[in-house]
Amino acid sequence: MERIKRNGRMSAMVRVLMASPNRIFTLNHFCAMFDAAKSTISEDIELLRNVLAQFGLGEIETVTGAAGGVRYLPGIAPLETLETVRGACNRLRDTTRVLPGGYLYVADIFGDPEILDTFGTVMAGQFFAKEPDFVLTVETRGIAFAMATARALGVPLAIARQGQKVYEGPQMTIQYVSGSTGELQTMSLARRTVRDRRRVLIIDDFMRAGGTVRGMMDLMHEFSIEVVGAGVMIRKASEVRLPVDVLALMVMEDISGDKGAFLRPAEWLEQAASS
Amino acid sequence: MERIKRNGRMSAMVRVLMASPNRIFTLNHFCAMFDAAKSTISEDIELLRNVLAQFGLGEIETVTGAAGGVRYLPGIAPLETLETVRGACNRLRDTTRVLPGGYLYVADIFGDPEILDTFGTVMAGQFFAKEPDFVLTVETRGIAFAMATARALGVPLAIARQGQKVYEGPQMTIQYVSGSTGELQTMSLARRTVRDRRRVLIIDDFMRAGGTVRGMMDLMHEFSIEVVGAGVMIRKASEVRLPVDVLALMVMEDISGDKGAFLRPAEWLEQAASS
Repeated sequence: MERIKRNGRMSAMVRVLMASPNRIFTLNHFCAMFDAAKSTISEDIELLRNVLAQFGLGEIETVTGAAGGVRYLPGIAPLETLETVRGACNRLRDTTRVLPGGYLYVADIFGDPEILDTFGTVMAGQFFAKEPDFVLTVETRGIAFAMATARALGVPLAIARQGQKVYEGPQMTIQYVSGSTGELQTMSLARRTVRDRRRVLIIDDFMRAGGTVRGMMDLMHEFSIEVVGAGVMIRKASEVRLPVDVLALMVMEDISGDKGAFLRPAEWLEQAASS
Repeated sequence: MERIKRNGRMSAMVRVLMASPNRIFTLNHFCAMFDAAKSTISEDIELLRNVLAQFGLGEIETVTGAAGGVRYLPGIAPLETLETVRGACNRLRDTTRVLPGGYLYVADIFGDPEILDTFGTVMAGQFFAKEPDFVLTVETRGIAFAMATARALGVPLAIARQGQKVYEGPQMTIQYVSGSTGELQTMSLARRTVRDRRRVLIIDDFMRAGGTVRGMMDLMHEFSIEVVGAGVMIRKASEVRLPVDVLALMVMEDISGDKGAFLRPAEWLEQAASS
């Protein structure tokens, strides 16, 4: 193999680190990959750290100790984040999105990979320090957003099912009142899915009265798993009291058939962008 | 802003291109980002193309014409792909995964972001040339895999729902026979979701008798959308005749309570790795 130059090493390293967010790579891993000395790789990483910081493209963290190395914590510049969230709010304002019964059509936003990646990365950025070892959501609409968040955190995703599914083995089932229908529903999670898991981040698409998030919290309580946080893509502006703070990206102030839905970026995103 | 060096430019470019697979960036975009001349950026890209190719980390394609520029087509080296797929096959062989009724427990594999990213990237790699403008799946288990595929293709994901959901507006509903239960079921898709869409890639988690894939094809037929291909994570070894080839990553040869499930990587992955 041709000996590779610094710019080549650094480019390939970004690709490798980005493909596995929050995973620790030893310096030896890169020494072997590029047939280079440890001091050379250290310098590469230092340069990489600076360039990513300069463009607000995430952080390279050095982890010391026996299992030490470097890991990539994905990030997006606060101004760019705010712009993306504002763009989504504007798209959602279209009056034709309001459906009979006061529902909002959001499937296109929730299925757009660039929006999901941005949103998932931003949400994950608020929870690296809490060290969740998995993300939980309940089917169906929140799955893609929860997956994007789990991906950025480098942890697995568990999906609670509505009703009981025979092909997932022994499962715990709880009842909850869904805010969107006001009806009593059930959600189930296979015991096996959370074996050896201790700390969960709860993710959902939309929070109205908080019933679904509360249901997921109850489910985690039954498994003795600690809820380190909760996040949703959109919450209604009304006050909801839950035993955990729920971080939203967008706040829905109002919805009506005439004027459409009025959404705005959450305060913490505005604050981050202005500081 | 401090003038940035080649290694910095190249590293930041990888980060930007990777975050938006298959999206065209003009050279001017990077000229502005780095305050650099077009000839300099061209050289950067040429070097980047070579280093990514050298490590089998995907391709940078130049698109000519008025809307021209460069785009990143994610890829994974065939040997590494085969290794990841073999690893998943081995994990699935554990006898405790076989549940009553001959179901296989797969939720952990289907929720692992690194496996999903690899699998989604590999699947996408087979369909860039077919230029689908969206990916379709049906809830629930295939969503994360479909999302990973859509992400690598740089196109949106549409999710057909089982039963009818009031909050998605006017929808088309078809009946199909699910291979896993043998029962008649319905799937629905909001008309709005496929507005202006013409070419679809169908993705699902598991193919037994092909009923679900056929159902998605019927649904697309009703919307006059062309099915450019179909892919599943796992298919049973038995012969299934469908009007479209279904590309699988893993083939399930056998499943029994005593011996567990025997899965192997699909032939085309073996061939790609040995050539």
